[in-house]
Amino acid sequence: MARRGQYAKGAAKRAEILAVALDVVAELGTRKASNREIAARVGLTQPGLMHYFSTREELFLEVLRARDERDHERFHSPQRGFQSFLDVIAHNASVPGLVRLYVEYSAEATLEGHPARAFFEERFVWVRALMTEAVRHDQAVELMGPDVDIPYVVDLVIAAADGLQVQWLLDPSIDMADRLARLWQGVRETSWPAVAT
Amino acid sequence: MARRGQYAKGAAKRAEILAVALDVVAELGTRKASNREIAARVGLTQPGLMHYFSTREELFLEVLRARDERDHERFHSPQRGFQSFLDVIAHNASVPGLVRLYVEYSAEATLEGHPARAFFEERFVWVRALMTEAVRHDQAVELMGPDVDIPYVVDLVIAAADGLQVQWLLDPSIDMADRLARLWQGVRETSWPAVAT
Repeated sequence: MARRGQYAKGAAKRAEILAVALDVVAELGTRKASNREIAARVGLTQPGLMHYFSTREELFLEVLRARDERDHERFHSPQRGFQSFLDVIAHNASVPGLVRLYVEYSAEATLEGHPARAFFEERFVWVRALMTEAVRHDQAVELMGPDVDIPYVVDLVIAAADGLQVQWLLDPSIDMADRLARLWQGVRETSWPAVAT
Repeated sequence: MARRGQYAKGAAKRAEILAVALDVVAELGTRKASNREIAARVGLTQPGLMHYFSTREELFLEVLRARDERDHERFHSPQRGFQSFLDVIAHNASVPGLVRLYVEYSAEATLEGHPARAFFEERFVWVRALMTEAVRHDQAVELMGPDVDIPYVVDLVIAAADGLQVQWLLDPSIDMADRLARLWQGVRETSWPAVAT
């Protein structure tokens, strides 16, 4: 029982560190989110911090995972279709450190054998499933036509969202959510068979 | 005159190194495109190579610049409109090392003060101008409506192209050019005022 207590305590501390690291990265970006800063905010020494996350890569990857879970819990609702996704995008504009972390890690992770590659591959499967759900939602309420090419739409919208993040990091005046809302509207319009005139 | 001769010789060698580095990166990727490999292929020692490019960052940034120039010369033609752009994308599928270099550097470059940030900011201005030219081409031949929102279309197509590169690096079965051709077709279709029915 003592061991189980220890384990639960360790898991709770790990979750606390992740929550704090998430805020520090969102606020300061990965470069300035030092081990010293994160350790201080959770009342640990730097070696104490490294007991829970042995490398910064591991910590940041878990930050990305925790962020997805938090966003999903906060914003996802199947009844709201694509609007759930737009809410996440709009929220992203308030956490540039996390957007940059995602952009950088997803780029690096494309290397064969990179430790984060599996995470991003699985994440794409997950996001594709969510986006497919959003298309089906629109089809059910007849906002999108029955013959829309779902894999094409799904990949396109995810790609546009990813690419817009790079543009937005260089120029924060770009309204990512607005551009994606208009893309979605365009998909709706072209999803119906052409009317013979 | 001797100095000018020296200078011309230096510029020629630099151009030769860039052309070779471009091929080595395209073939092997940045990780495996070692200074040793590049130096050997241009008949230099490694310190000799560093005389022309003092850091790998500088060399790789110049590789990206040289690649844009080469692609532009080879594929760009105002009369062909968006097809020029699709040709570059189709060609990219044969040079994964360069695609990865672009994806990684564009992500890193979003950091305030990063040496490559100015390059990417200028590159976005340049690509936006090319994409605007492609929209105007389609308008001139009445494939696109007169009222299309050009800045929106331009940012969206560039974002989709950038985002698809990450997906393609993780899964090379994705046909980037096909997806972008369909996006462009969708833009054409939604660019005309709705017909009252």
